[in-house]
Amino acid sequence: MKDLTSLEKLVDAFSMLPSVGRKSAERFAYSILTMEKENVDQLINSLKEVKSKIHQCPKCGIFTEFDECDICKDNDRNSNQLIVVSYPKDIIKFESLNSFKGRYHVLNGVISPMKGIGPDDLSIDKLIDRIKKENVKEIILSTDPTIEGETTAMYIAKLLEKENVVVTRLGYGLPIGSHIDYVDSKTIEKALEGRKKL
Amino acid sequence: MKDLTSLEKLVDAFSMLPSVGRKSAERFAYSILTMEKENVDQLINSLKEVKSKIHQCPKCGIFTEFDECDICKDNDRNSNQLIVVSYPKDIIKFESLNSFKGRYHVLNGVISPMKGIGPDDLSIDKLIDRIKKENVKEIILSTDPTIEGETTAMYIAKLLEKENVVVTRLGYGLPIGSHIDYVDSKTIEKALEGRKKL
Repeated sequence: MKDLTSLEKLVDAFSMLPSVGRKSAERFAYSILTMEKENVDQLINSLKEVKSKIHQCPKCGIFTEFDECDICKDNDRNSNQLIVVSYPKDIIKFESLNSFKGRYHVLNGVISPMKGIGPDDLSIDKLIDRIKKENVKEIILSTDPTIEGETTAMYIAKLLEKENVVVTRLGYGLPIGSHIDYVDSKTIEKALEGRKKL
Repeated sequence: MKDLTSLEKLVDAFSMLPSVGRKSAERFAYSILTMEKENVDQLINSLKEVKSKIHQCPKCGIFTEFDECDICKDNDRNSNQLIVVSYPKDIIKFESLNSFKGRYHVLNGVISPMKGIGPDDLSIDKLIDRIKKENVKEIILSTDPTIEGETTAMYIAKLLEKENVVVTRLGYGLPIGSHIDYVDSKTIEKALEGRKKL
């Protein structure tokens, strides 16, 4: 089967999916060969549809198929609290809590001098705009607890000092269900700093 | 993100791939959202190409992009020995040996009364045709060592009794590198039956 160049190209394409190695990509490609044509068409069409229909909400930056996302247009929610995240997918965890009634703001990245990404590449101007227009009372900085995520949070916190808004950061500490002997020392340090009186 | 019906459809489509559960399908779908458009196009185009270009070789049944597969048209190979397999993908292992110089015949399935698949649904007539036309001296039945694979092999062996051809079956026994205490008893039984004098 050395003459199957189109199959090889499909293996390459499948390999671009997250955590898909050569072996899995080959299995996917072979399954396409024997799959009903209508099922393959379904995959092709939904790939096209997703790329053509879904875009970021012009207001908050989360993914939507409409002019404005369902969170921005939901009047039961308000902009008193804005959770600021790096990427659209980060909001899924917050939404699954079903308890947060505020809105979101997506930065579309983190400040990373190594990758040449500066503050101007992030959606920070828009955030300041929203704070002014939407009666925002609290900004909950929810970038990842990594060096880049921290840098980004610090930068924004500094920038917002002159705005009339409370800026908070997600709490650090022990993850629920973890074992202390397996937790890294940086986390233990943060858990100690963030200890609470019982 | 409850309004993303096109994303949901893509998750459904990815779930049809082998061993891809809901969680992985969701990760794949989200990665498509942020993937460069040209990469998604590459995936779409290779899916289309594979489905339109690749078909089974009309002679032996393995996958090819041409009128005849590279094994059937290779004059360095001959039809003295035909390895008979259930599915096109089964030949990959034999080809990877780089030592078999014969050709193949794909049955396109196994006899399975449970699934309503009888001998007439398999490419058996074509096999008998080839035996007569291509000077085949040995048929190496290489269906899986499962109940259905065995039934199919037995059926074909019986059918070929009246043809002037040697019919063999792949050997059974211990897989190389296995540990006897982990091998199932059916395999041990077969290994005992198939023991050889040293």
